[in-house]
Amino acid sequence: MTRPTPLSGFPEWLPPQRMIEQQIVDRMRRTFELHGFAPLETRAVEPLDQLLRKGETSKEVYVLRRLQADAKDASDSGLGLHFDLTVPFARYVLENAGRLQFPFRRYQIQKAWRGERPQEGRYREFRQADIDVVDRDTLPFHYDVELPLVVGDALAGLPLPPVRMHVNNRKLSQGFYRGLELPDPAEVIRVVDKLDKVGPAGVAGQLEALGASAGQVKACLALAEISTPDLSFVDAVTALGVTDPLLDEGVAELAAVVEAAAEHAPGLLVADLKIARGLDYYTGTVYETVLVGHESLGSVCSGGRYDNLASAGTDRFPGVGLSIGISRLLGRLLGRDALTISRPVPTCVLVALPDEPSRPACLRVAAALRRRGIPTEVSPTAAKYGRQIRYAERRGIPYVWFPGEGAGEGPGEVKDIRTGEQLPADPASWAPPPADLHPVLASA
Amino acid sequence: MTRPTPLSGFPEWLPPQRMIEQQIVDRMRRTFELHGFAPLETRAVEPLDQLLRKGETSKEVYVLRRLQADAKDASDSGLGLHFDLTVPFARYVLENAGRLQFPFRRYQIQKAWRGERPQEGRYREFRQADIDVVDRDTLPFHYDVELPLVVGDALAGLPLPPVRMHVNNRKLSQGFYRGLELPDPAEVIRVVDKLDKVGPAGVAGQLEALGASAGQVKACLALAEISTPDLSFVDAVTALGVTDPLLDEGVAELAAVVEAAAEHAPGLLVADLKIARGLDYYTGTVYETVLVGHESLGSVCSGGRYDNLASAGTDRFPGVGLSIGISRLLGRLLGRDALTISRPVPTCVLVALPDEPSRPACLRVAAALRRRGIPTEVSPTAAKYGRQIRYAERRGIPYVWFPGEGAGEGPGEVKDIRTGEQLPADPASWAPPPADLHPVLASA
Repeated sequence: MTRPTPLSGFPEWLPPQRMIEQQIVDRMRRTFELHGFAPLETRAVEPLDQLLRKGETSKEVYVLRRLQADAKDASDSGLGLHFDLTVPFARYVLENAGRLQFPFRRYQIQKAWRGERPQEGRYREFRQADIDVVDRDTLPFHYDVELPLVVGDALAGLPLPPVRMHVNNRKLSQGFYRGLELPDPAEVIRVVDKLDKVGPAGVAGQLEALGASAGQVKACLALAEISTPDLSFVDAVTALGVTDPLLDEGVAELAAVVEAAAEHAPGLLVADLKIARGLDYYTGTVYETVLVGHESLGSVCSGGRYDNLASAGTDRFPGVGLSIGISRLLGRLLGRDALTISRPVPTCVLVALPDEPSRPACLRVAAALRRRGIPTEVSPTAAKYGRQIRYAERRGIPYVWFPGEGAGEGPGEVKDIRTGEQLPADPASWAPPPADLHPVLASA
Repeated sequence: MTRPTPLSGFPEWLPPQRMIEQQIVDRMRRTFELHGFAPLETRAVEPLDQLLRKGETSKEVYVLRRLQADAKDASDSGLGLHFDLTVPFARYVLENAGRLQFPFRRYQIQKAWRGERPQEGRYREFRQADIDVVDRDTLPFHYDVELPLVVGDALAGLPLPPVRMHVNNRKLSQGFYRGLELPDPAEVIRVVDKLDKVGPAGVAGQLEALGASAGQVKACLALAEISTPDLSFVDAVTALGVTDPLLDEGVAELAAVVEAAAEHAPGLLVADLKIARGLDYYTGTVYETVLVGHESLGSVCSGGRYDNLASAGTDRFPGVGLSIGISRLLGRLLGRDALTISRPVPTCVLVALPDEPSRPACLRVAAALRRRGIPTEVSPTAAKYGRQIRYAERRGIPYVWFPGEGAGEGPGEVKDIRTGEQLPADPASWAPPPADLHPVLASA
């Protein structure tokens, strides 16, 4: 066969990069679990009718077909790959409601797929880390306050540039547009959401096309301009002179989110009244997050409150959640070599092999080290020791173990190949300094 | 919408089961890393020509199609979901050969998909844990000896029934059939591989159809009957009176695998000369593994040596690997409630909420506990304490924290709700016994 080439939009990492990704995922898991979120996983596929029910990404779904389907079912399987983790989660909650404890806190770290045109930060296959809380019938508002803090905690625990979360509330926008007596507030939200893409003039044109007057357009753009790191957005909204009960509710909710974040994670959060999120299922708080210094990348963590996504008959399961775009984050940071790992293999010790017949004895040395949690491998060949040391060097393995007399599992010597220091050591008791035990993640 | 129902062949777990799966995966990862295997992940899709190149599973591939593909590319995307992790790994090695260090040891724990008819132990979506070693040009044989021991280690570290690995060598079978002067040894391997399914009479019939004489059939069946936990298979083969250099090589290799396992993992391994593995890419040692007491489930860990899977031009990357069928294992054990977890949430402490205005103070208590690695959540509502305790009880959360005077983050009291014991405690210093910190996996 010919040498294969990469598939655009389906990123794959080299071993050190994959190790960085795993450490990042592991630390996120740890933070989510510290906050009481249970792990969950859903299958990769959903029935197409589930996938096409909501939102504007339906056109990007990958549909499955069995290659050798029988003539009588040669059509598609009726299944598609999920394009996010929220829709599958809502379906899972409905399917298993009788066997879950509510409020249900879960995290979910999985791949998702979208058949869109690949570009930086936008992939056809990508990994997300989601946290959500859902409850039966009603979900207390305080979760809208808590969840961005959990994400803030998860990201703060990583060697990343700082993040800034932009928060708005759809009730605020929708109430404002209703108070302004605009005909279709939901449509206005969609138009204003494009502000960063098409600019104020573009938004104005589209609002006029919807029948908005010059005064209404001006008010919409004035609202969208409000962005404050503290509660001063409240006065700025009031100053626009629009009144509506839904607007008041939205302002109060957004104020609560901003206030709590100011205490628990100063600098994390900004009230930004142009944020809307494209997906139709959000009904209240909405979140978007930029990596400071990498704003062009777009949002690396988005989400919001969805009161109506999961419902069947009279059962309703409102929720709120956030999704970290791991692939987008890593695509940028690994692409710029902004993250490093101290070595690209887990191995801490290479047991040198004096000659091939000594392999069983060397395996015993390795087993003794592993029993005490020290990642160890035995040299692939009984080459000259110089070559075996270079094998370790090329992989960043910090220690080479030289078996003692008779190559037994008794005392031998261990060499730190970075310093050249070589000392007698017993495989039953020797241990490396803790910092050398596992590969260490850092920012470059 | 109506309440959704499960999709046959696409298993999903409830939260406690998912937690069990995660702990099992984490322990496997830990063992693989202790043995110096680096983590790797490949994309979920491969070009169809890669997937259809080898083996007999091609008919079960799921092909992708973009739902809203343009008229000019309304056909399939030319991509399919991978049906195992070996084919994608071989492709990855070829694609990245210039940037990898050889011999390359990696593990890979991912989902795979096959469009086959679901039944117990056979899914359309399933998780595998693979380990492989590949080298450039030639791969020393000692890896055929090492890899089953790594898997034995990984499985022995789990609360599972014991496993028994059945090992054979295709050189042995092929050499034997060649020495017998059978016309198509590769085809004979495929026929004998069905012995457990169709029985000796069925195999005899199929061999006769291939042109085998009664004597040849008898010898083939006699070889297939040989199964010994020690080196006595060597004499049993010799007694059949067939000679061939490839047969000798196969016998010697199999003897080396059996001998090493007898030392490092007594009872793990059996030489079983009927094992062949369906996939065409194996060229030497082949492995299959049963869970003792669950033999009907089929193999839960299979693999072998493949000398020709990854090659492009004059580059060749022989490998050996094993794949643990995590979904198959867990489908059986979780289906029979054979594994338990001490609680279905990570949470160790629930901070009780005296009243809603105290939430910020309770969040501070929770943050103090989390800073010291104690998974904590705050009560969802300021219900009566009795109801809050029941909330913890239903989830198996062992401790409820009662904030002190003024609901501050200063000293309060902590109750072990299993014993009822309630003691003064400071969130800056209190810690649970280590066994309560995280959910504990056990066999039922």
